[in-house]
Amino acid sequence: MKRIILLLLIPIVGYSQTDHTEMIKKIYDHQLTESPVYENLRYLCKEIGPRLSGSPQAASAVEYTRQLMMDYGFDTVYLQPVMIPHWVRGQKEITRVTNSQIKGTYELNSIALGNSIGTGPEGILAEVVEVKSIEEVNKLGKAVAGKIVFYNGEMDPTKVNTFAAYGGAVVQRAYGASEAGKFGAKAVIVRSMTNRRDDIPHTGSLVYKPLMPQIPAVAISTNDADELSKLLSKQKDLKMYVETHCEMKEDVLSYNVIGEIKGSEYPKEIIAVGGHLDSWDVGDGAHDDGGGCMMSVEVGRTFIDLGIRPKRTLRVVMFMNEENGLRGGKKYAEEAKAKGEKHIAALESDSGSFGPMGFSSMGKDEQRKKVQSWAPYFRPYHVWDFERRGSGADISPLEEQGVFLMEMEPNPQKYFNYHHTEADVFEVVDKRELELGAATLTSMVYLIDQEGI
Amino acid sequence: MKRIILLLLIPIVGYSQTDHTEMIKKIYDHQLTESPVYENLRYLCKEIGPRLSGSPQAASAVEYTRQLMMDYGFDTVYLQPVMIPHWVRGQKEITRVTNSQIKGTYELNSIALGNSIGTGPEGILAEVVEVKSIEEVNKLGKAVAGKIVFYNGEMDPTKVNTFAAYGGAVVQRAYGASEAGKFGAKAVIVRSMTNRRDDIPHTGSLVYKPLMPQIPAVAISTNDADELSKLLSKQKDLKMYVETHCEMKEDVLSYNVIGEIKGSEYPKEIIAVGGHLDSWDVGDGAHDDGGGCMMSVEVGRTFIDLGIRPKRTLRVVMFMNEENGLRGGKKYAEEAKAKGEKHIAALESDSGSFGPMGFSSMGKDEQRKKVQSWAPYFRPYHVWDFERRGSGADISPLEEQGVFLMEMEPNPQKYFNYHHTEADVFEVVDKRELELGAATLTSMVYLIDQEGI
Repeated sequence: MKRIILLLLIPIVGYSQTDHTEMIKKIYDHQLTESPVYENLRYLCKEIGPRLSGSPQAASAVEYTRQLMMDYGFDTVYLQPVMIPHWVRGQKEITRVTNSQIKGTYELNSIALGNSIGTGPEGILAEVVEVKSIEEVNKLGKAVAGKIVFYNGEMDPTKVNTFAAYGGAVVQRAYGASEAGKFGAKAVIVRSMTNRRDDIPHTGSLVYKPLMPQIPAVAISTNDADELSKLLSKQKDLKMYVETHCEMKEDVLSYNVIGEIKGSEYPKEIIAVGGHLDSWDVGDGAHDDGGGCMMSVEVGRTFIDLGIRPKRTLRVVMFMNEENGLRGGKKYAEEAKAKGEKHIAALESDSGSFGPMGFSSMGKDEQRKKVQSWAPYFRPYHVWDFERRGSGADISPLEEQGVFLMEMEPNPQKYFNYHHTEADVFEVVDKRELELGAATLTSMVYLIDQEGI
Repeated sequence: MKRIILLLLIPIVGYSQTDHTEMIKKIYDHQLTESPVYENLRYLCKEIGPRLSGSPQAASAVEYTRQLMMDYGFDTVYLQPVMIPHWVRGQKEITRVTNSQIKGTYELNSIALGNSIGTGPEGILAEVVEVKSIEEVNKLGKAVAGKIVFYNGEMDPTKVNTFAAYGGAVVQRAYGASEAGKFGAKAVIVRSMTNRRDDIPHTGSLVYKPLMPQIPAVAISTNDADELSKLLSKQKDLKMYVETHCEMKEDVLSYNVIGEIKGSEYPKEIIAVGGHLDSWDVGDGAHDDGGGCMMSVEVGRTFIDLGIRPKRTLRVVMFMNEENGLRGGKKYAEEAKAKGEKHIAALESDSGSFGPMGFSSMGKDEQRKKVQSWAPYFRPYHVWDFERRGSGADISPLEEQGVFLMEMEPNPQKYFNYHHTEADVFEVVDKRELELGAATLTSMVYLIDQEGI
C-alpha cells in the first residue's frame, strides 16, 4: 500500500512545485477577460491628465494610485516622501525663422526642453549653425559663440531596436545645451527624437553640466528640422528667434507610492515592480508611463484576486520624477539601503504599453540563464526575447545593492511616434496589448516569487 | 603554398555559399531607409480607395499595380483575366429596434454582410431570437420560423492568436444565414467579429449553401450586440426592422496582376508571393490587404534595386476577389496547372501590416524544418515564430499541386480592431512596421530562392 501512495503523490507534488503553466494561463485569461487595467489607465490619463513633477496633477496621481491599491486590498499602502524639482513651461514657446530668402518669416513647431531656462519675453535672435553631433560643436568651438546651435543628428532608422537609436541621438538633447553654451552659444534647437517625419515636437529633459553656462533649449519637429536644414544649406546668414518662458522653481514635496503584499515564506525578501507616475506636461503620459504604472498595480491586484499568496514580499512602486530628475528612484534605493532591506529583484515597465515581447535584465549570468529557462512559459503569449541586457531608469539606483534588475520590453517600433509629445494619449494604447503586458509582468513576478532568482 | 591557399579559400567559399546574414541586413536597411512602400500604400488607399470586386476602384487598382511593377523594371507584367462576382451594397442599411420598453425605437450601427441579398425598400419586421452558435439554431429548429435570428457568439478573448478566435466565431457570419433560413427565419443579425467593444460594425462575406433559402444578413457593432442582448433578456417580444438594398449583379471581367522576374538558374521553378488587391467597400482596405499587396511588390522591387538576380523565377501576384469569392486565387491555380507550371513555393501576406512576427506554413516536415533552421537570420529583426501551421486563402488552391505554402504572420492583436470596417484606413498603418514587413517577406523569398525548399 505504501508504494501505491508514493506513486500517486510524486507526480502531484512534482507538478505543483515545478510546472507553472496552468497558473500562468490563469493569469493571462484573467487579464484578457476581467482586467480593470484599461479603465484605470483611462482614469489616470483622462480624468487626471499629464502629471509633470510638482504639478497638481502629479499630486492627484499619487492620491489616485494610493486609493487604488488600498481598494484592491494590498496589505499596506504608504507614501515615501521625496523632494522633487518643479519645472514649469510657462506660456507657449515661439521658434521662428526671421529672414529666409525663400520663406520669409515663419514659425516652427517647437517645445522647450524640460529643465531648460527660459529666454524670457525679450527672446533670443541670432544666426543659426547646424551640427549633427556634440563632437561637431567641439570642433567648431568658438565659431558657435553668439549663435543658436541647431542639433540635427537623426535617430538611426536601421536600428530595429528603436531604443538603441534613441540612445545614439539623445545625447544632443541631454547635453547639447551645456556643450554649446561653454563656447558662448546663445541657445540650442534640437531635432526631435523620433524616426518619423511629422510636425510634432518632442520634449524631454536636458541636463546642465555643473559650472557651465546655462542656455535655453527647444526641440523642433522632424519636418521642421528637415526644412530648416535645407534653408541653411542655401543661406548662411539665416536668423532665428526663440522665446520661451520656462522656469525652474523651488523643489516641492512629493511621494513614491508603495503598495505591499507580505510574503508568506520569506517576508524579508522583496520583489519590487513599478513604473513612473510623473509624465511630461503634454499629451496624457499614456505610454510614458501611465501604462507601466497601471500594469504594475495589476501585478498586485492579480495576485490578490486570483488568491496567490506570494512567498516573498511584493512591492508595487509608483516612482515619482523619472522624467526630469529620477529623484523617486534614487530615494527608493537610499531608503532601502538605510533600512537594510533585501531586494531580490526589481522590475520596471517604462517602454510603453505595446504588445510585450520579452524582458531585458542585468545581473549575473546564472540569474539571466534562470530567466531564459522560463521562456517556454511565455512563448504561447508571443513573448520570446529574454536575451537583452538592460533595465529601467527608476530601479537602476538599486543595482549597487546587488539587486537583480529587469525591464519589460514591448514591441519598440511605435514608441517614438508618441514619446514626450501631445500624441502620447490614452487613445493610442490598445486594450488587449495593455492587458497582455499586465499578464506578462505579473507572470514574471510570479515566477521570480515562486522560484527565486 | 598549396596548403595556405586552401586554408584561405575554404572560409571564403563557405561564407558566400551559406551565410545570408549580410544580404538580409542589406534588405532590412534598404527598406528602413529608402522604401517607397508607405507612399505606395498611401496612393492605393487614398488616391484609389476601397476596392470591392467589380468596382471601378478595383479596376483602378489593377492598372495602378500593373504600372508600378512595369516602372520598377520587372521582366514581364501581365494581367490574368478572371470573371468575378459583383456585389453592391446600395443605400445605407437600417437596423432598428422598434418596440423596446426601455429604449423605445432606436437605430443600431449595422452593415450588410457581403454577398447578402437585400430586403428591398419594404424591409423586414419581426421578433428576434438570440443564439450563440449555429448549433443552437439547429436545436431551436422551427422555433426560429418567421423570426430574425441574432447570432451573438463572441470571439474568445483568451485566445492570444486572434485569428484562432476569429476562426471559432466566423462560421456564424459565413453560414448563419443559410442555417437559419432553412428553418424559415426571415433574416439574420450577426455580432461583429472583433474582441473590442465599440460602435463599428464589421462586414465580411457570407456563403449561401446550395438549395437552401437565401435570407438577408447584417452585422451590428459589439456595443449594439451587448445592448440588444440585455434588452432581449428582459423583453421576449422585442421586434426589429432591417432594411438593406444590396444586390448580387452579373459577374464582371477583372484580373490578377502578375509581375515576373526570370530566374537565372532554374527559370522553370516559380516562387509566387502576393496579397489580394480587392477589399471591402468601407475604409481603405489598408491592413486588409493593401499592405500585403504593396509589401509583395516590394519583394520584386527590392531584388531589382539591390541587384539580386533570383535563381528561380519570382512572381509577384495581386490576387483579385479574395473577399467574396476567391476567384482570383482559384484562377491562378487553375492556370498554373493547365500550363504545367512548377511552383516550388507560394507566399501570401494577408494578416495585416503590423510588426512581422513570423511565418506559418503548410507542406512537409522537412520543408518546415528547413524554414525553421533559418530562424536565426530573422531574430535580430524581432521575427521569431516559424512553428505555426497555416497559409493564405489566395494561395491555398495551389496546395493540391504540392506547392509549399507560407503566410507571413504579423502581430495579431489589433487586426480585428479594423478588419472589414470603415476604420481600416491608411492612417492606422505604421510606416516602420510596414517597412519591416516588406523586408521580412523579401528576406524569406530570398532564402527560398537561394536555398530551395
